[in-house]
Amino acid sequence: MFDVKKQIHEYKERQRDRGRLLVSCSDRPGIIAAISRFLFDHGANIIESSQYSLNPHGGEFFIRVAFECPELALKKAQIMSEFQEVADRFSMDWKLHLVSELKKTAIFVSKERHCLRELLWAWQNGDLMTDIALIISNHKEAKDEAEALNIPFFYMPASRENRAEVERKQLRLLAENDIDLIVLARYMQILTPNFVSSYPRQIINIHHSFLPAFVGARPYERAYQRGVKLIGATSHYVTNDLDEGPIIEQDVMRVDHRDDVDDLKKIGRNIERSVLIRAVKWHLEDRVIVHGNKTIVFS
Amino acid sequence: MFDVKKQIHEYKERQRDRGRLLVSCSDRPGIIAAISRFLFDHGANIIESSQYSLNPHGGEFFIRVAFECPELALKKAQIMSEFQEVADRFSMDWKLHLVSELKKTAIFVSKERHCLRELLWAWQNGDLMTDIALIISNHKEAKDEAEALNIPFFYMPASRENRAEVERKQLRLLAENDIDLIVLARYMQILTPNFVSSYPRQIINIHHSFLPAFVGARPYERAYQRGVKLIGATSHYVTNDLDEGPIIEQDVMRVDHRDDVDDLKKIGRNIERSVLIRAVKWHLEDRVIVHGNKTIVFS
Amino acid sequence: MFDVKKQIHEYKERQRDRGRLLVSCSDRPGIIAAISRFLFDHGANIIESSQYSLNPHGGEFFIRVAFECPELALKKAQIMSEFQEVADRFSMDWKLHLVSELKKTAIFVSKERHCLRELLWAWQNGDLMTDIALIISNHKEAKDEAEALNIPFFYMPASRENRAEVERKQLRLLAENDIDLIVLARYMQILTPNFVSSYPRQIINIHHSFLPAFVGARPYERAYQRGVKLIGATSHYVTNDLDEGPIIEQDVMRVDHRDDVDDLKKIGRNIERSVLIRAVKWHLEDRVIVHGNKTIVFS
Amino acid sequence: MFDVKKQIHEYKERQRDRGRLLVSCSDRPGIIAAISRFLFDHGANIIESSQYSLNPHGGEFFIRVAFECPELALKKAQIMSEFQEVADRFSMDWKLHLVSELKKTAIFVSKERHCLRELLWAWQNGDLMTDIALIISNHKEAKDEAEALNIPFFYMPASRENRAEVERKQLRLLAENDIDLIVLARYMQILTPNFVSSYPRQIINIHHSFLPAFVGARPYERAYQRGVKLIGATSHYVTNDLDEGPIIEQDVMRVDHRDDVDDLKKIGRNIERSVLIRAVKWHLEDRVIVHGNKTIVFS
Repeated sequence: MFDVKKQIHEYKERQRDRGRLLVSCSDRPGIIAAISRFLFDHGANIIESSQYSLNPHGGEFFIRVAFECPELALKKAQIMSEFQEVADRFSMDWKLHLVSELKKTAIFVSKERHCLRELLWAWQNGDLMTDIALIISNHKEAKDEAEALNIPFFYMPASRENRAEVERKQLRLLAENDIDLIVLARYMQILTPNFVSSYPRQIINIHHSFLPAFVGARPYERAYQRGVKLIGATSHYVTNDLDEGPIIEQDVMRVDHRDDVDDLKKIGRNIERSVLIRAVKWHLEDRVIVHGNKTIVFS
Repeated sequence: MFDVKKQIHEYKERQRDRGRLLVSCSDRPGIIAAISRFLFDHGANIIESSQYSLNPHGGEFFIRVAFECPELALKKAQIMSEFQEVADRFSMDWKLHLVSELKKTAIFVSKERHCLRELLWAWQNGDLMTDIALIISNHKEAKDEAEALNIPFFYMPASRENRAEVERKQLRLLAENDIDLIVLARYMQILTPNFVSSYPRQIINIHHSFLPAFVGARPYERAYQRGVKLIGATSHYVTNDLDEGPIIEQDVMRVDHRDDVDDLKKIGRNIERSVLIRAVKWHLEDRVIVHGNKTIVFS
Repeated sequence: MFDVKKQIHEYKERQRDRGRLLVSCSDRPGIIAAISRFLFDHGANIIESSQYSLNPHGGEFFIRVAFECPELALKKAQIMSEFQEVADRFSMDWKLHLVSELKKTAIFVSKERHCLRELLWAWQNGDLMTDIALIISNHKEAKDEAEALNIPFFYMPASRENRAEVERKQLRLLAENDIDLIVLARYMQILTPNFVSSYPRQIINIHHSFLPAFVGARPYERAYQRGVKLIGATSHYVTNDLDEGPIIEQDVMRVDHRDDVDDLKKIGRNIERSVLIRAVKWHLEDRVIVHGNKTIVFS
Repeated sequence: MFDVKKQIHEYKERQRDRGRLLVSCSDRPGIIAAISRFLFDHGANIIESSQYSLNPHGGEFFIRVAFECPELALKKAQIMSEFQEVADRFSMDWKLHLVSELKKTAIFVSKERHCLRELLWAWQNGDLMTDIALIISNHKEAKDEAEALNIPFFYMPASRENRAEVERKQLRLLAENDIDLIVLARYMQILTPNFVSSYPRQIINIHHSFLPAFVGARPYERAYQRGVKLIGATSHYVTNDLDEGPIIEQDVMRVDHRDDVDDLKKIGRNIERSVLIRAVKWHLEDRVIVHGNKTIVFS
């Protein structure tokens, strides 16, 4: 644990002057010139810039600019206030993130812990730069792993009957901890529309199929029945349409007739964990933009 | 063309003594002993043997044995007659194929010719050992390619109105040519139940999605709308349930937010042709066994 | 053939106002601001922009900007002259390409034609926007394919003995045709340093191994001997160090113990053609920048 | 830990009657008939059978037969004694393994623990059926993980100076624990020929490159220098030729110009752990046969 804290501290020091600007507006000439001029005038150097336009003639335009600016933390308020003028000129939606202000993450998990473990492992290795504030589970299995890393663990058994009450407690806990991101790491409870709408585009789920194939329950059983030759997993933002939210990442692995349902589950676990990790990592790095029901991923 | 004929002739000479025995029955001890003893007693050497059992205790058992037997063509009738005794003992379903008796294939194609071209190319390279007896199309685009290889080409415009009449002509043509396999290489016409039932497990289609995602029309458009991060193609035997037949092979490729519907189609064409080729090749080599609505592929 | 010409004509019309600016210089604040301001001032809208910096503090910086500018062809000379001022300020290396000014390509091929065919096929499909000016071969096999598409074909048998004489003829032919890009589509002759230095970073080769494994001759035989479980192909710019030039693209496919050398060659052909196509396409779209002995690919 | 023990116990119970017969000899007719007849006569049912022949006319022939035989443990000695007659007839090399007699494994690890963790994780999940008898390391980092699972951990600092002495202790420890398999899970010490020859074809290493590319030290640094577009990992049996032993499994992942050496290492860790797990799993299931410097993997 000491290592993780030290590692995070060093990362924040190293990235102290780094920021990320995310902008969307209608495409027209001059947007990049305006943004890059603004950054230059404020002493910033652009490190990485990615953009995408649905249509250069007035379609929606998206840009993510990573930059370095000496004394960024001190200047942040002023930069934000002055950028509003540029934003107004182009009717921009925009956000400025300081890399050193880590997002606070809550992980929800049920019995199966492979995704949780992969997240914790990547986190310990410095591959997921976030503050894992707490782990919530409707089972006790993950308690030891959480505590070994000094992450507060909350056992909250949930069922159809007590859902409203449990979600109320969960929302309170999330609010108290200023949670920015909720990762459903194989959390097998349904979330109500009320819960979901409290964290729009901030809840990432891993579904154990190659969506839109096998929406809903028991995807491996249904994949087996259908006789598919590849199985997959999909990481997506949670919306109130089951398994219909914006897809962030997907992947597949090959299976064959010899694989029974248990084999599919074992193979699937490897896909699930790598797909979820990539999706969470990209989200934490502000690389994912949701547009309608789709994502733009500046990976 | 001379090359193809010569190549096929040489292949048949080389494989003159090769046979493939396909057997299915309820699993119990002694099946392999009986088959291998039978082959040994008839002077055959087993070259390759693959098997699969749904359950060793009485589940369905499947085996494909490739063997070499001097003077196989001469002995075939006798071998078949004598194997029936073994088959009766175990209540086997079985088939014996001589490798040198090439399957006769008809290719159906519409406007898009990438799958046809890949098939013809593989065939010229000696990668698809079959007798391509004819090409049928509801468009004229493929005429030149067929004729350049001296393959009879039949232009048969089809529509909802003349479907019955056209299928009658097609079935006559297929029968006259003793067709064993029909490959739908992006043939965009619906086949009637009557047609399909004339060639059970003998019609291979390529569907331009990762089934069961995007069953039916316009899969690339729908994949684009859904915002998937991988697109796929599926080769399957045609049954009377649209896109629901036994899957032989599937594959996918990565796409991203920048790919529009035309890009998905271009990327998809590469998946379609490689998936179809593999499925057809495995079928021609008697590597595919249909069991219920699934396939066992001894690849 | 009519189709290809028409298709190219339409593409050029459609892309008439599109340009690509490629710049490299030492990284420091203000570069993107200067470029984007310049383009805005000249009425251009940035369509796509990719950049990479080896080190934000003075490391080499690379940018590719695709833009749209009304009447670009007319304004080109003026834009170039005026951009020189910006370039001087930052000591930039730079190039401006008009998308409608297609590169002129020569394809070199020997006996194996799978790469040639894939190139011609992609070209006919509108996936490779170039003017294929001629095909040169030391064998006659490809003659028919070239002529079917009205591409001038030059049969130039080459050997160690006549290499100097043949290369002299080839260079003359290439010069007469204003060739911008030479694609070695499985051309099995060695090129002399003199030839290579005439087309620096303009000759793309496909090597039939996953470099740096199996540099040199007979890679599939050596892969078989070593018992590798994946085989690959590599597309790279040709330099005078055999198989050591900057790598543009690589890929692999799985093989197993049953695959003999001929199987490896067949599997390998599929990798070779897809790897070469991607490399050529990226080069034609000005997406590849060579830096030292490595490439930056803005794919 | 209780879980792992219970899980292993249940597995052994479930597999009590399962055996695996591995045979190699010169190919000729009658081998499979003889083996399958023998098994049938001893009341065994063949569950899975895989074979490979270098050449049906007298080349080396290999077969792996998994079977079920009631009371196998009791009958083992008799079966082995009687099979020797069959073996003599065909001059077979052969081995009989009882599935319930788990191999005893020792894991060697240095500082980097991603491969160790993956092994332990798979083991806890019931995906690696072995008795992990001990972990040896020249560093202390892995101590906690070993002890959390009650696996004896031996800290044995090694260097050029004390190598002989350390290996002597290690060999004694391995002998005392009847070790069948040594897994080098990123163990960064050289083993002497004496050590290696004590465990022929029983030491599995993971090399962090796509062999034969980047044999030896610092492969990621060299991959970065060469500008490859894919990086890989290779699992192989250790011989006294550095990184030249029989390859069991390999895989690769895509990288690009933006990835520096640290990125390659991070990406590489994911390849290393999945490649090593597959190799170890196949070895434990007696699916790997070494022939010369190559492997036959009946996966």
